[in-house]
Amino acid sequence: MTRPGTFTIDATDGAARAGTLMTAHGPVETPVFMPVGTKATVKGLDPLEVRAIGAQIILGNTYHLHFRPGEELVAAMGGLHSFMGWDGPILTDSGGFQVFSLLDTAKIDADGVTFRSVYDGAKARFDPEVAMGIQRALGSDIAMCFDECPPGGASRAALERAVTRTVAWARRCHATEPAPGQLRFGIVQGGLDRELRTRCAEEIAAIGFDGHAIGGLSVGEEREPMFAVTEHTAALLPADRPRYFMGIGDPEAILRVIAAGVDMFDCVLPTRLGRTGSAMTWEGRLNLKNARFARDGDALDPTCSCPACSRFSRAYIRHLVSQDEMLGHRLLSVHNLAFLLGLAGAARAAIRVGRFQPFLSESLERLRASV
Amino acid sequence: MTRPGTFTIDATDGAARAGTLMTAHGPVETPVFMPVGTKATVKGLDPLEVRAIGAQIILGNTYHLHFRPGEELVAAMGGLHSFMGWDGPILTDSGGFQVFSLLDTAKIDADGVTFRSVYDGAKARFDPEVAMGIQRALGSDIAMCFDECPPGGASRAALERAVTRTVAWARRCHATEPAPGQLRFGIVQGGLDRELRTRCAEEIAAIGFDGHAIGGLSVGEEREPMFAVTEHTAALLPADRPRYFMGIGDPEAILRVIAAGVDMFDCVLPTRLGRTGSAMTWEGRLNLKNARFARDGDALDPTCSCPACSRFSRAYIRHLVSQDEMLGHRLLSVHNLAFLLGLAGAARAAIRVGRFQPFLSESLERLRASV
Repeated sequence: MTRPGTFTIDATDGAARAGTLMTAHGPVETPVFMPVGTKATVKGLDPLEVRAIGAQIILGNTYHLHFRPGEELVAAMGGLHSFMGWDGPILTDSGGFQVFSLLDTAKIDADGVTFRSVYDGAKARFDPEVAMGIQRALGSDIAMCFDECPPGGASRAALERAVTRTVAWARRCHATEPAPGQLRFGIVQGGLDRELRTRCAEEIAAIGFDGHAIGGLSVGEEREPMFAVTEHTAALLPADRPRYFMGIGDPEAILRVIAAGVDMFDCVLPTRLGRTGSAMTWEGRLNLKNARFARDGDALDPTCSCPACSRFSRAYIRHLVSQDEMLGHRLLSVHNLAFLLGLAGAARAAIRVGRFQPFLSESLERLRASV
Repeated sequence: MTRPGTFTIDATDGAARAGTLMTAHGPVETPVFMPVGTKATVKGLDPLEVRAIGAQIILGNTYHLHFRPGEELVAAMGGLHSFMGWDGPILTDSGGFQVFSLLDTAKIDADGVTFRSVYDGAKARFDPEVAMGIQRALGSDIAMCFDECPPGGASRAALERAVTRTVAWARRCHATEPAPGQLRFGIVQGGLDRELRTRCAEEIAAIGFDGHAIGGLSVGEEREPMFAVTEHTAALLPADRPRYFMGIGDPEAILRVIAAGVDMFDCVLPTRLGRTGSAMTWEGRLNLKNARFARDGDALDPTCSCPACSRFSRAYIRHLVSQDEMLGHRLLSVHNLAFLLGLAGAARAAIRVGRFQPFLSESLERLRASV
């Protein structure tokens, strides 16, 4: 078996790449959308269903798993894969994003962050060693560095401080002992400031991580500057390692970051939309609570072959959603994930045959026509 | 294909019977537990999952489907089977139970019942023709008569009035036109009063229904008198037609009514317990919220091969349930249904080999030891 961390570029088309990343739990073909399993479950779905719609790798959240049920318990139960019944690759975030965003009580110093748990308000402290230790105990295939993620609209001084800390913390993260076969990804901060992104990308790249993430975007800023900075940053990151855009899940943005040279991305959007009654389709986002679907016998997306689209009508799903029936949220979640997994798979196929540019233009046109 | 309504007795053992009931959507082997799909969905589960754990026939609720989404819409979408993606047999209740129990605003007269919908408080009226018409539009395989179901502890006068109305209404139900291939079951009322049960059973049996139900039990009365009246009533019902005990779902009671000669039974208990965090097992009912399961690597029921037990631990399900994760409710629901479906299947197997009595004693002993 190929050594975990090996990243093969199968094809490129402009900045877009099709690659294969080897992990301790098997290969991941990129570009890849990664469903989010925050609390050791992709909300509402059985891991077998997640696998059946083509998911290759899923996410777990260090922050949440640390507090409930605790990494020590997960480790005692055989690690996160065994605990949640998913034998494919798992990427865990570092908890940094949650520490900074879930509560405004976080107190940051040069060494780490003190905050209160959203579960019971108890005081807690994360630092690079703690965050990597939790991920080691969880036994994920890819562990993310503990970084400082400033809010959208942060001042240049705040962004610069975050870059300095993120780089210093990345070195500390890299110095910790990973779980056997566990890869580590560095994270680039710097907001929309190209100078800071350049500095951060260069310093992070020099540390020698297995892959690199673009963090601190998709936090409320304008979209076009966000894509421009993504392109700028991706180009600075080593071409022989995977690049991961943290937290993006709308179809157009996924296509745009793939075009910028990003290989991996994740978002809670598909399952969150599912739970609130919406479907992602080529006709745009459908709010199934809308009365116009009451007698609509079509599938959510007539071009989709997911379990929801192959066996149920919009009328039925509308009935379930309007009655707050669990199955409605579940069918929408499985469809939305299948839609994004299929989109990334189609991008990969287009890159491999050198047709990514026309695929991109046609897809963007189709998506924009629907708005 | 055998004509819908044909009921073959495959074996008997004491009063217990193993039979096969033919419906327009295929055969049902009895004794059979019928999962409840109140609002056109067995809560949280995909029909394929329900089928995979051995369900043969499911229930739909006339009251709920009439108000949401309405039988006319269901009919326009091809009927209940097509609407909900379940191609096996479906039994619909008549709405009587909900009319009498969901709100205390019901005003009953000799002709029918006027009440307010639990959905929006709007005035509504059900009578035998309305209830059968809704079931005809839904296109269920078995339609239940519209009956008067008095509360537990009702006076003899109230019980007698209910019997008189139930019989008169049953005649009106029987006079309506069913959907093609739709069977109709009469319902016997009479509370714990043997004389009333005898009278009602004889009068209902004389009408000529495809099967007969014992209603108005399991509504808060003592258990032993309930079993005694079940035995008394079942013996009075035609042996060549299926007998259905409406609304019973705990394992001991299921075995007891099978012993009394009942062939079919349903209950919301397995899915309701699933949603509230409990598992039905041979060790008794387990409350998965209990901290003692936090590090329990066993399956919910080590003897069970359902999707929940074959791939997940009590520790994981406890984590899901304590975090109110949908998958936890789903796994418990699928297990609880599998447990009752398996129990009825085991009873059938025992009857067929003439070993029902020892199976009953051993099973009751096992269940009682666990309490």
